[in-house]
Amino acid sequence: MTSSPLEPQLAARLKRDPQGLVPAVVQDATSRAVLMLGWMDDEALHRTLETGRSTFWSRSRQEYWVKGETSGHTQTVREVRLDCDGDTLLLLVDQVGPACHTGATTCFDDDRLR
Amino acid sequence: MTSSPLEPQLAARLKRDPQGLVPAVVQDATSRAVLMLGWMDDEALHRTLETGRSTFWSRSRQEYWVKGETSGHTQTVREVRLDCDGDTLLLLVDQVGPACHTGATTCFDDDRLR
Repeated sequence: MTSSPLEPQLAARLKRDPQGLVPAVVQDATSRAVLMLGWMDDEALHRTLETGRSTFWSRSRQEYWVKGETSGHTQTVREVRLDCDGDTLLLLVDQVGPACHTGATTCFDDDRLR
Repeated sequence: MTSSPLEPQLAARLKRDPQGLVPAVVQDATSRAVLMLGWMDDEALHRTLETGRSTFWSRSRQEYWVKGETSGHTQTVREVRLDCDGDTLLLLVDQVGPACHTGATTCFDDDRLR
C-alpha cells in the first residue's frame, strides 16, 4: 500500500482497520442484490472514485485489482457511499456478467446457513 | 471473545481476520436496502443463528451487542449466507424502525462520495 492522493478531507473521515483497510459492500444498482464485498485502502478508494471502476486491495495477493480486469465482468460505479461511522463503504454498480469468480450471479448464492 | 459452540464444520469454513472477525452485511429482506455492516466472531454468529436476532461483536466496546436491544430497532433474521471465500456473511432481515443509530433508515443514507 502506498501513500495516496485521496482528498485529505475524505481521508480524515475514514476509519481503517489495523491493516489500513475498510470493507466495501458492492450492490447491483438495478437488481439491488448484494454482489460481493471487497477491501479498500485510501489508494483503492481514490482509484475507484477517479475511474468509476471498482478497485480493491487483495488481502491474499497484497496487490490492487480492478474488478473484471481479467474476467471482463466489470463493475461501473454509479454511487459510492460512506457509512455513519466512516468505516464501511457501499458501492452501487452496473455489473457486467456474474459478479462471483465461481460464475454465480453473486458471491452469496451458494451457501445458506439459516 | 470466547470459545464458541458454533458447529465445528461451519467454524472450519470461516476465514476470520487477525482479530477473529468476519464482516456481516445486513440487508433489508423487503426493500433490499443495505442497512449496515457489523462484525461477528464465532460466538456472535452462533447466537445469531440460534436466536434469529442479529448479534454482533463491537470492536470499539469489545462486547457483544444485539441489534435493537436498547433502541427497540430490532432485526429478525430471515436468512444468513456465507460467501464463496468463507470470509463475509450476508444477513437478510426484517428491520423494525430505522437501522441507523442516527435515526436514518440505513447507515449509508447521508454521505455520498460519488
